[in-house]
Amino acid sequence: MNKTIMLKWLQEGSISIPTALLTHYKTLKLTEQELVLLLHINSFLEKGNEFPTPTELASYMTMDARQCHEMLSQLIKRGFISIMDGNNENGIRFEQYSLEPLWNKLIDLYLFINKQEKAKEAEKAET
Amino acid sequence: MNKTIMLKWLQEGSISIPTALLTHYKTLKLTEQELVLLLHINSFLEKGNEFPTPTELASYMTMDARQCHEMLSQLIKRGFISIMDGNNENGIRFEQYSLEPLWNKLIDLYLFINKQEKAKEAEKAET
Amino acid sequence: MNKTIMLKWLQEGSISIPTALLTHYKTLKLTEQELVLLLHINSFLEKGNEFPTPTELASYMTMDARQCHEMLSQLIKRGFISIMDGNNENGIRFEQYSLEPLWNKLIDLYLFINKQEKAKEAEKAET
Amino acid sequence: MNKTIMLKWLQEGSISIPTALLTHYKTLKLTEQELVLLLHINSFLEKGNEFPTPTELASYMTMDARQCHEMLSQLIKRGFISIMDGNNENGIRFEQYSLEPLWNKLIDLYLFINKQEKAKEAEKAET
Repeated sequence: MNKTIMLKWLQEGSISIPTALLTHYKTLKLTEQELVLLLHINSFLEKGNEFPTPTELASYMTMDARQCHEMLSQLIKRGFISIMDGNNENGIRFEQYSLEPLWNKLIDLYLFINKQEKAKEAEKAET
Repeated sequence: MNKTIMLKWLQEGSISIPTALLTHYKTLKLTEQELVLLLHINSFLEKGNEFPTPTELASYMTMDARQCHEMLSQLIKRGFISIMDGNNENGIRFEQYSLEPLWNKLIDLYLFINKQEKAKEAEKAET
Repeated sequence: MNKTIMLKWLQEGSISIPTALLTHYKTLKLTEQELVLLLHINSFLEKGNEFPTPTELASYMTMDARQCHEMLSQLIKRGFISIMDGNNENGIRFEQYSLEPLWNKLIDLYLFINKQEKAKEAEKAET
Repeated sequence: MNKTIMLKWLQEGSISIPTALLTHYKTLKLTEQELVLLLHINSFLEKGNEFPTPTELASYMTMDARQCHEMLSQLIKRGFISIMDGNNENGIRFEQYSLEPLWNKLIDLYLFINKQEKAKEAEKAET
């Protein structure tokens, strides 16, 4: 029996997030709750559910569906999540979340910080 | 220059967390902020800093060192973190955090949930 | 432009494999080439391609499609990969690889090794 | 007892490797066996053993220490691994492996491939 559970554990696997996101979400003006909501969305996307409802997301979080809906709206407005829509091969309209805006912001910040560090080093070297 | 930044990004790498932790922290009575604090501790441990200060931890989080200290105390009291101490090879006393209590709680919960699911299935099969 | 490439890199992400697989594949009588073939299959499965052809797999490896086909057959025969088939919602028959046999073997070995270690410790404690 | 084993499994964790490495090692002229040797070195580095011996590495692989030593020499010569040396705080000389050359080659290749793809797209757009 325990073997079955270990197999399930192994198959559920692990989520890997860029270290830079954990280090820099604060500078991106994200709270811990917003960060975890984004991780949940990422996790749903990876499992193939591309438009989880506020109710689905809230079921794993310490907030209710209404609060989750509100936080999603804010994250869209503030440019961390986008919604893409289109028509699939059967002509059915679909909507899906994309975290590309988040990754873009993170890369921008990363490039900015590294540029600043280099500028400081150059300054030091001159004096 | 951009190559250097990509190399740095690659070397910073990614953090991998068990999917079960993201799915079950709510049931373990952890808030999102507590979860992220635990992820930061895990990340410090992996980088070899085994006893990060509240100030170090808070620098990445949306709280100050005093609040972080308070949350750490609570997590120790509630049995998610332990502090191990000992003497290193040079006879110097050291303290370090361990997340073993967290993993133990998570495994207990995981085993419990799977047992329940099996019981339900067995019940269904009987009727 | 470099930002686009970093975004692509980030979105391609990373593959995470259990440390135990890297540590124990030799004991499971797998060669390095077989291990990497299994990693490729795992990677295809995660991307949603559940029955990659020998040609697709070989395109990333230092062997040709014929050799890859042969290695796949051997791994199925030796009980590391299974093929599941069924009918999808549109009634179309499909086949897909499953790595469940591999994970089962790995867990069995892991449990066996840990049991042995405990037996040794118990023996030591007695003497 | 099974709980202890699950805890150990969880603490051993997982290794995460950039998807790009699995996709492109062939183009970098690495064989599967060389790739896995590099993964083992990476794994030792992460665990804090920065200069594993051929014997230690070979113990996990399907080759003996002598073959492993030969492969290491070749990988150094071909610019995938470097050896850094220095003196630690106690004045003791140390040597350690670095995989920076590998990551540099991978990034170079990645940038090159993306540039080529863009050139092709531009060509198409013109015609």
